[in-house]
Amino acid sequence: MTPEPADGLAGLSINQETVKQWSLPELAEGCRAAGIGSVGLWRAPVQEYGVERAARLMRDSGLTVTSLCRGGFFTASDPDERAAALKDNRAAIDEAAALETGTLVLVSGGLPPGDRDIAAARERVADAVGDLAPYAAARGVRLAIEPLHPMYASDRCVVSTLGQALDIAERFPAGQVGVVVDTYHLWWDDRVPAQIGRAGAGGRIACFQVADWVTPLPEGVLLGRGQLGDGCVDLRGLRRQVDAAGYEGVTEVEIFSPALWARDGAEVLAEVAERYRRHVL
Amino acid sequence: MTPEPADGLAGLSINQETVKQWSLPELAEGCRAAGIGSVGLWRAPVQEYGVERAARLMRDSGLTVTSLCRGGFFTASDPDERAAALKDNRAAIDEAAALETGTLVLVSGGLPPGDRDIAAARERVADAVGDLAPYAAARGVRLAIEPLHPMYASDRCVVSTLGQALDIAERFPAGQVGVVVDTYHLWWDDRVPAQIGRAGAGGRIACFQVADWVTPLPEGVLLGRGQLGDGCVDLRGLRRQVDAAGYEGVTEVEIFSPALWARDGAEVLAEVAERYRRHVL
Repeated sequence: MTPEPADGLAGLSINQETVKQWSLPELAEGCRAAGIGSVGLWRAPVQEYGVERAARLMRDSGLTVTSLCRGGFFTASDPDERAAALKDNRAAIDEAAALETGTLVLVSGGLPPGDRDIAAARERVADAVGDLAPYAAARGVRLAIEPLHPMYASDRCVVSTLGQALDIAERFPAGQVGVVVDTYHLWWDDRVPAQIGRAGAGGRIACFQVADWVTPLPEGVLLGRGQLGDGCVDLRGLRRQVDAAGYEGVTEVEIFSPALWARDGAEVLAEVAERYRRHVL
Repeated sequence: MTPEPADGLAGLSINQETVKQWSLPELAEGCRAAGIGSVGLWRAPVQEYGVERAARLMRDSGLTVTSLCRGGFFTASDPDERAAALKDNRAAIDEAAALETGTLVLVSGGLPPGDRDIAAARERVADAVGDLAPYAAARGVRLAIEPLHPMYASDRCVVSTLGQALDIAERFPAGQVGVVVDTYHLWWDDRVPAQIGRAGAGGRIACFQVADWVTPLPEGVLLGRGQLGDGCVDLRGLRRQVDAAGYEGVTEVEIFSPALWARDGAEVLAEVAERYRRHVL
């Protein structure tokens, strides 16, 4: 039984990392109370809770799982490491299928130690996507390549722009491989409007995620994302661009922020909903 | 009287921030001792020492000043702030002329507080460059637009790619406005080989700077550059690209690193020279 979403929140999905302080049952109950009908989940907490059990909890709570984060880390050149990555990604696809989400987000991986050939690393990503796409498609899961901000290019994700993600995705059928448009990673790039158009025309936008850009960046630059409206990103402008490109999915709010994690989850969720209405919708 | 550069070091210039622990006279003496004939200078230490006095020191030491860092910070929309920025940049041009360097490096500036229109901010940069270019040219100084890594787009430099820098530079004569190619800022971008070609064909490469990319990035991400060879950048590959594009200037080593600043300057300089020979030359 799907609860009715609250006013204006039908298109909102909460990525669970935004309220990382919550367990999965707390997330389900918190979303129900806030009138939010969709969530994005992460593999580690789902595995810890149990995949089938998490799937049942989501079903019983009437929650739609809009994405599973994340597969990927495809850049190892060592054959054993590569085989292990592919095996782990098949498990991630199985988990996505169990959660009944059609979208598995892929973060490509960084450069192996001592490696200075980023173009070759990107090709290894494309090869792995090609290996996995049919397996995913057979299970109703689409792979969604996420470009991460160039500050992560060496140690996390060699795919840094929407253009690069599309260059890989477009080698495969649109039903099998799409891309993630995340405002935090892409806001600075003047080519993004054209690339969102290209992605939309090809039916490639698998997921639209939002977070704001705030400075100073913290050490390691991983946990410095801003609450919607606190930074310099034209969130509504980007949302309108994906809309105009034909994207009909939800907006997933994914904010990694120790400041949000230190607060009461329900209070954070209410703030996110208010900011979403004010700055995105 | 220009001293003969040491073997293999004729094309090497030391940006003074790499050995920030040194005063200007220490820099001049250290370069002489190491057989290095060129330096890049910064405005603040030059002003502190005295512009004319610094110019005389460089001349008397036989050192060529390959660039002055930096003008710029053009993104204010407030008219008074904008006028102040233009005035300060004319002073920077005068200082560059006094130091007999043909290259003033420009860092564009970030987004003003509350501003979410990065495209408009880039246009304000282009307008300021247009205002200043004739003044600079009349004094024998070329403006060199430096794209900074996208992680600085909000608070330091809205020009993030070599393509964006060229889009601005190419509105003006090549003798008046060029670009800086800095490996630290550009290494991750798959379009850089084509853009270096474009820059070279147009005679736009005013300065080639090198530093390596290492992680984790420190808080604020300003002072985390790596010694040549310590990171993941294909420094030699990029140097060969600027060579192939027709660049005939020096390679300026510009590494902001508290670890290097904590050491003996002469030891750092010797290490830089060795790393330059091994990883760049």
